[in-house]
Amino acid sequence: MQPSTPRGVRDYGPSEAISLRYIAGVVEEVFKRFGFYPIETPAIENTAVLNAKAYGEESNKEIYILEGEAAGLRYDLTVPLARFVASNRSLVLPFKRYQLGAIWRKDEPQRMRYREFMQADLDVVGSAELDCEAEVIAAPLIALEELGIRDYVLLINSRKLLQAILKSFGVPEAKEVAAIRIIDKLQKLGREAVQKQLEGLGVDTKACEQLLGFIEDDGDNGEKLARLSAAVEGTKDEAGNMSRLIEMLGAYGLGGKVIVDFSLARGLDYYTGFVWEFAMMENGKRLPSIGSGGRYDNLVGAYSSKSLPAVGSSIGITRVFDLIGAKSMMKTQAGVFVAFIGDNRGYAVSVANTLRGNGIYADLNCMRRNLSKQLEYAGAMGIKHVAIIGDKERLANKINLRNMISGAEEMLTIEEVVAELKKK
Amino acid sequence: MQPSTPRGVRDYGPSEAISLRYIAGVVEEVFKRFGFYPIETPAIENTAVLNAKAYGEESNKEIYILEGEAAGLRYDLTVPLARFVASNRSLVLPFKRYQLGAIWRKDEPQRMRYREFMQADLDVVGSAELDCEAEVIAAPLIALEELGIRDYVLLINSRKLLQAILKSFGVPEAKEVAAIRIIDKLQKLGREAVQKQLEGLGVDTKACEQLLGFIEDDGDNGEKLARLSAAVEGTKDEAGNMSRLIEMLGAYGLGGKVIVDFSLARGLDYYTGFVWEFAMMENGKRLPSIGSGGRYDNLVGAYSSKSLPAVGSSIGITRVFDLIGAKSMMKTQAGVFVAFIGDNRGYAVSVANTLRGNGIYADLNCMRRNLSKQLEYAGAMGIKHVAIIGDKERLANKINLRNMISGAEEMLTIEEVVAELKKK
Repeated sequence: MQPSTPRGVRDYGPSEAISLRYIAGVVEEVFKRFGFYPIETPAIENTAVLNAKAYGEESNKEIYILEGEAAGLRYDLTVPLARFVASNRSLVLPFKRYQLGAIWRKDEPQRMRYREFMQADLDVVGSAELDCEAEVIAAPLIALEELGIRDYVLLINSRKLLQAILKSFGVPEAKEVAAIRIIDKLQKLGREAVQKQLEGLGVDTKACEQLLGFIEDDGDNGEKLARLSAAVEGTKDEAGNMSRLIEMLGAYGLGGKVIVDFSLARGLDYYTGFVWEFAMMENGKRLPSIGSGGRYDNLVGAYSSKSLPAVGSSIGITRVFDLIGAKSMMKTQAGVFVAFIGDNRGYAVSVANTLRGNGIYADLNCMRRNLSKQLEYAGAMGIKHVAIIGDKERLANKINLRNMISGAEEMLTIEEVVAELKKK
Repeated sequence: MQPSTPRGVRDYGPSEAISLRYIAGVVEEVFKRFGFYPIETPAIENTAVLNAKAYGEESNKEIYILEGEAAGLRYDLTVPLARFVASNRSLVLPFKRYQLGAIWRKDEPQRMRYREFMQADLDVVGSAELDCEAEVIAAPLIALEELGIRDYVLLINSRKLLQAILKSFGVPEAKEVAAIRIIDKLQKLGREAVQKQLEGLGVDTKACEQLLGFIEDDGDNGEKLARLSAAVEGTKDEAGNMSRLIEMLGAYGLGGKVIVDFSLARGLDYYTGFVWEFAMMENGKRLPSIGSGGRYDNLVGAYSSKSLPAVGSSIGITRVFDLIGAKSMMKTQAGVFVAFIGDNRGYAVSVANTLRGNGIYADLNCMRRNLSKQLEYAGAMGIKHVAIIGDKERLANKINLRNMISGAEEMLTIEEVVAELKKK
């Protein structure tokens, strides 16, 4: 039979998986440092939960449903969080949680877009303060920096501002969500196509031109916000909040990364306040975002009689892997390969036991191979040191430690080998 | 709407998730130390892969199928490994891999049995040597010991021995797999029910009694193996291998844990050699096993024209959590809560930045709460230290560090706070 995988999903071989797990580990470590706590929710959720109204009609067709079950695979980690909070009303608030895990979307696979991929989310539920926006934006960006990713920007907008802009350019309130969905495609479809779709909603041509001109206009953040406050009624407070948020991000060393972008809409229906994307740039063109987030003060209320404010960010671990995985790819995580010849397995195992007991990653020969074949394996696996064990070594109670790069060999005691390998 | 989860799956709240991730982390670390490398395969596999003949008819009904797709959720991590190896023929052999991840089985939920749970597997593909059995048994058991689990036993049998026993007691070869499946239920159903089912296969009553008497007979491992070699033809070599394996496990300090158990069958059809279970005992009764494994030399061949020997073990991370999670449950992972009052957010953020930069897990206040409310939150979260920041502290460029257990407070510099918190 053909040993293939379904469309849009993929395997990670050892060196890929080492990189993927390294990326996830750095992100998780930073989230912990920021004082967020993990939760784990199942991959499977009831369809009633997945389809709750706040979730948005558009995406329903992308949900994998399980045959014969009223359940499907989670489409993001935000809806499960909202469901979890709604069913655990004794949580200490604010509830600051992170979650790493796979999510599934049955959309068309393409470059950097899979049907199964890994996300890392962090959210604060129960606080309406801007301080939370700052934390959930700063933590993932600092994780990116620790991964060596520096050429990203933070695009930021506010649903409240966007709504005010739409209103002031004559988009009727009933068409607002539809207009936001269309504007969200500006980057992807271009201005002409978006204008056509907006006209299809009943916005007249001139208003469309003005609207798109306004939201696409360049300038620095301060200019944009001043222009907005002057031109569009009722935006002063939220523009002030945005200035305050940018200032707060400055305290994390991130002030220079922020770009106010009134065209940023974020398709999901549940955002109510600030929305943002973490985007990499390539030759002046925006790559698919590696993360995003926003405030969604009504989502918990969709699963409960009591609403709670909430705000969060996601980073695509799989997407970060696609961007930097190849660069950071390590062939091995083993520090040493324990080779043995003849009847010296017992001594080799005791050496491996001691190394492992000292936290050293020790791959142990488990084939009846001669020494040169064993060295060949260690070389192919990219392992830098081989502990060679034969009769001579056993009788002297020593180990012949070979450096696979320089080729140098040294007869050492086990304590010396531990010290040598711990140096690395 | 009712925010419920599907049957047989569960959430892990923060303290549970901290424990679950701690358990998974210890297991992964030990697997790495044993020189195993990760791979990641998708949760979704083609049904052709999931249903491959070696997989066993019995379990097919337990597979979750995705509506409208010729794909379903993985039922274990062994079949994906075999499929991966079959489709990556340039792998360096032996291929020593581990994988941690969720698997799904649509069977009847009960105590410690879920429909979605987490497993940690490690396997060696490409070597037929007993050394591999020793490594894939030793690593998970040493992981259990590092988790403080000591009251386990390693039950071990060999499919080859069991087949010879069945043959010598008159079970026809065509009924062998069916008989193995029945005998596998001995612990669960009891001797009488198993005897009845074996008779249903056409084995006569007297032979059944003798067979069950033989495989249930007690004694120490040496006695059992000697008795077997004497009583059942063609078992001498494999009995010798089993003695050798037990001796090898002695080198890992595990010799005293091994119990040879001829009744151990392991339902899965793909095992071809040694099979084992890691079992906890409670009042002399075996609990559901927390891990298992065996040699399966034909499974890769089910996905490829070229067969490869393989052997591996699984531990149920979810099950280990059920056994020790409550004991090891930590309320928090944050080392400090950074509290602030008045307009001192900026200084508080810079303190949090420094702490986090030093690898300290620092939860930062993100509500406009007064100090006593902030201390209440830190107390409810089980956080041991609070860094209190007010005007006095900011002006002195110091931090008031409160020990939440003793109630003691000290005015310290940021360097002193870092040093104090790193002590823990």
